[in-house]
Amino acid sequence: VQAENWFTLNHRLAPRLPSAHKGANGHCVIIGGANGYTGAAILVSKAAARCGAGLTSTWLEGGALALVSTFPEVMAKNIPEHEVMSQVNELSVHHVLVIGPGLGKKNWGQSWMSAVTKHDGFDSMMKVIDADGLNWLAQNHLTNEKWVLTPHPGEASRLLNKKVNAINADRYAAAREIAKKYGGVCVLKGAGTVIADQSGKTIVCPVGNPGMGTGGMGDVLSGIVGGLLAQGISLFEAATLAVVIHGEAADRAAGENANYRGLIASDLFAYLPQLVNPPISEKC
Amino acid sequence: VQAENWFTLNHRLAPRLPSAHKGANGHCVIIGGANGYTGAAILVSKAAARCGAGLTSTWLEGGALALVSTFPEVMAKNIPEHEVMSQVNELSVHHVLVIGPGLGKKNWGQSWMSAVTKHDGFDSMMKVIDADGLNWLAQNHLTNEKWVLTPHPGEASRLLNKKVNAINADRYAAAREIAKKYGGVCVLKGAGTVIADQSGKTIVCPVGNPGMGTGGMGDVLSGIVGGLLAQGISLFEAATLAVVIHGEAADRAAGENANYRGLIASDLFAYLPQLVNPPISEKC
Amino acid sequence: VQAENWFTLNHRLAPRLPSAHKGANGHCVIIGGANGYTGAAILVSKAAARCGAGLTSTWLEGGALALVSTFPEVMAKNIPEHEVMSQVNELSVHHVLVIGPGLGKKNWGQSWMSAVTKHDGFDSMMKVIDADGLNWLAQNHLTNEKWVLTPHPGEASRLLNKKVNAINADRYAAAREIAKKYGGVCVLKGAGTVIADQSGKTIVCPVGNPGMGTGGMGDVLSGIVGGLLAQGISLFEAATLAVVIHGEAADRAAGENANYRGLIASDLFAYLPQLVNPPISEKC
Amino acid sequence: VQAENWFTLNHRLAPRLPSAHKGANGHCVIIGGANGYTGAAILVSKAAARCGAGLTSTWLEGGALALVSTFPEVMAKNIPEHEVMSQVNELSVHHVLVIGPGLGKKNWGQSWMSAVTKHDGFDSMMKVIDADGLNWLAQNHLTNEKWVLTPHPGEASRLLNKKVNAINADRYAAAREIAKKYGGVCVLKGAGTVIADQSGKTIVCPVGNPGMGTGGMGDVLSGIVGGLLAQGISLFEAATLAVVIHGEAADRAAGENANYRGLIASDLFAYLPQLVNPPISEKC
Repeated sequence: VQAENWFTLNHRLAPRLPSAHKGANGHCVIIGGANGYTGAAILVSKAAARCGAGLTSTWLEGGALALVSTFPEVMAKNIPEHEVMSQVNELSVHHVLVIGPGLGKKNWGQSWMSAVTKHDGFDSMMKVIDADGLNWLAQNHLTNEKWVLTPHPGEASRLLNKKVNAINADRYAAAREIAKKYGGVCVLKGAGTVIADQSGKTIVCPVGNPGMGTGGMGDVLSGIVGGLLAQGISLFEAATLAVVIHGEAADRAAGENANYRGLIASDLFAYLPQLVNPPISEKC
Repeated sequence: VQAENWFTLNHRLAPRLPSAHKGANGHCVIIGGANGYTGAAILVSKAAARCGAGLTSTWLEGGALALVSTFPEVMAKNIPEHEVMSQVNELSVHHVLVIGPGLGKKNWGQSWMSAVTKHDGFDSMMKVIDADGLNWLAQNHLTNEKWVLTPHPGEASRLLNKKVNAINADRYAAAREIAKKYGGVCVLKGAGTVIADQSGKTIVCPVGNPGMGTGGMGDVLSGIVGGLLAQGISLFEAATLAVVIHGEAADRAAGENANYRGLIASDLFAYLPQLVNPPISEKC
Repeated sequence: VQAENWFTLNHRLAPRLPSAHKGANGHCVIIGGANGYTGAAILVSKAAARCGAGLTSTWLEGGALALVSTFPEVMAKNIPEHEVMSQVNELSVHHVLVIGPGLGKKNWGQSWMSAVTKHDGFDSMMKVIDADGLNWLAQNHLTNEKWVLTPHPGEASRLLNKKVNAINADRYAAAREIAKKYGGVCVLKGAGTVIADQSGKTIVCPVGNPGMGTGGMGDVLSGIVGGLLAQGISLFEAATLAVVIHGEAADRAAGENANYRGLIASDLFAYLPQLVNPPISEKC
Repeated sequence: VQAENWFTLNHRLAPRLPSAHKGANGHCVIIGGANGYTGAAILVSKAAARCGAGLTSTWLEGGALALVSTFPEVMAKNIPEHEVMSQVNELSVHHVLVIGPGLGKKNWGQSWMSAVTKHDGFDSMMKVIDADGLNWLAQNHLTNEKWVLTPHPGEASRLLNKKVNAINADRYAAAREIAKKYGGVCVLKGAGTVIADQSGKTIVCPVGNPGMGTGGMGDVLSGIVGGLLAQGISLFEAATLAVVIHGEAADRAAGENANYRGLIASDLFAYLPQLVNPPISEKC
């Protein structure tokens, strides 16, 4: 299993196309942020935009104005539960979907999972399933070729119906098994994040730092994956790049004095633009 | 067709009059920000104020508090659809109007376009029509001498009832044709933004960078035009200056490492004050 | 008439008392921010706290959460019109009151002016009357010994029932006349702000810059006066210090390149703490 | 009584465990922020997260979206009074509770105090009681071994049913007496904050500066204590470290020019991460 970090992979970031308009840079649709968990949707949205998604739309239960107040670039809508079925029709195969962060375990979130997975375009669109979206998946056993699943060990244990200890005992095997069982690409988070697909292709990214053990870091990762997918990067590549960008951003945010304690997820945003672009020598 | 950028045009920025109070620096009224698109109105408002408008008023469907929370200098009001007809009477010929960003295609936005265009003072006031305001215009074929229209190629195609390819095949011609058909000044956005009026006067501004292909950048441009118009700059001049200020701000925001991917519209605000003032040697 | 600026007056800023707790540093109560004008109340609140008020309470019509989201140090409450009469009883003679910014001309604001001026403690408390509070005063002809009135020439014209030209023709006389007619201290804003009291004592502060001709600058000034009064500084002294601090903050915010156009009121906050403290050599 | 400050105690900050995930870094639950006092809950939440709590949940009366807008890492919920009894069941002995800041003296806050103190897990969980929580305690005479009480002299006077002068006459004795009467650890705030427990163990921290006499500073202190407790630091140690971190952060925020006047509570956040981590030489 090959180990990678931002310095080994950054040459694979292509320069942005000079003539690409906002439509050509992709449209990332984020579904999450049930009441009580609005912040998760805010973090995903900012991360997706800060990684270069051309357009970002976020559908929340009730916190749309809290999001646009802090990030006006996002198109944010409150969708009450009874409007889920009509709103889902605005999803298209050309969108990239991130679903799960702050989705919650109640009716609102469950309705969304049910609605999007039955949507005509769902199979063909690129997507990221995280957090409560994964918990729903563990109970509904769907498979798909075009998603990135981003479980932490607890979510992985539910996806594989195994104990957490068993997951951590062989993290490579667990990531591969999730990809085999559910399809697509699995990003198994933790100290030494593992990316694997169904073919058994596996990469480990021993990146990041102890400051990342704090709420919201995973939401930022989902947003980075979504933002990269929106720009046409392939599933496995987007997942791998996102993990190393995320870890390197956290290292830079902790600073040279390594202030790990007190690091928060939002601290990463300032470092994303410098990490999602190729070195200046390779730029157009 | 002459090419211009901020460095060729900045000498035309007059120093601010020492004794001008807030009333004398103009009042920019922004109408936009339907529910789901509040962020667009936020971006326009900030841009107008950051370019020196004396007063900024913004009328939204529901996000007034989200706007003032992040930008308390703006007078922001929620205007439900049934109040559009009475609110429009607060518009005066002395205002500069920016209408369109986040206006939406539903009743609320359509009512506004209908109300403002029938308003007594509408013909005489300086104004900017953007985004969904342009889409409304494409269907209603009004002409006016005192507006700046700011279409991207898609909006231009609707204004001229031509395919997008035809627009991009001769962007100079397209900009001139829009100005001729609708009156005023046309700013045709894209890589190499074109400014043209009915007389055929045409300027191209090959400014900006690939990072600008992201949602909200156009809203900032509308706000810059509006802010300059409010201070008494003429239509063509305000449109041209706005385009070069907008592009130069984006270049500065991307930084010396040219971090184009991950640039967001709000990044431009910090650079506006240094770009809307004349060089220090010419200041009073 | 003596001319003053921050450099001639800053030696009069006393060091903060080492043992003063939040109660001892004064409690500034701000009433303003009718719907549509919430931002004014936000600007006053931040200015008062940034100048050292121990406690800041703000009573608005509906934007309390917009305020605390951006400035959590403030105790902010929404007071609907029918609660004005009960809420006014929470005012005490120990508070310093700032009333007027964003108060509006409708029932909510009129009720407040009526309620506070009839309050038992009103005569004895230190206070600042600004903006729509002044317009109310022009119609109600109250006099008081313990207020600072902060009109711009338009408000001054209504207070004296004269044309604006007449005000500007002799600004010293106008400021003195307002102080004589209404009592307390008058701060007549404009290029060369004049401070005068009933005795005819008059100071002019030729401070500030053309960038201050933009909405919200006056709200910040009201907040500075209120914050200084809260700390026990006398009426005339607080008014004068506030004017020079306000102007110097605007000069620093414009920067060495004198970027006057595009300056906004919030830009001043970062400079207030360095201007409301004595030079380091005089500090305890 | 030994005097301590951040420089004498910082060696006791352990490095963060490399493999700790967000769950392992502790979950801080904050209850406070009645309507009108939302800001207090915002300040506590940010402080807890900025000191390294793995997860932060905040239950307010109505300002959840104002909080997540400015700090999306927090899980924030509005809990109306009639849901207090069901919501309290989500508290667990594994949480660390901070209750009191902005709790208010009305029904909502009183219901919370009543509900949490009757909760099965209350006795065993680590907790911080501050502000209106202390006022409730003064009337209800509960004792507990696992709390930190953080009164200022006024709250201490109510806890001991003595005059404020009597508290300040012997601050060491007062802090010890509160700890003896109510259990746990008492932090008696003021110039020279005293930490004492029931055994008579007493430390004084002559830290901080006159700029701290402003609303919200105490809320930040509560959050720091809560954040440290969440990470498994013991009661007395967390209380002592929090006091010295809080004071040192205020000194750094005032800057080398000692700008005490105009310092606000939020100014401390930027300095917390550098103060809650061990010196770089001791880091893993």
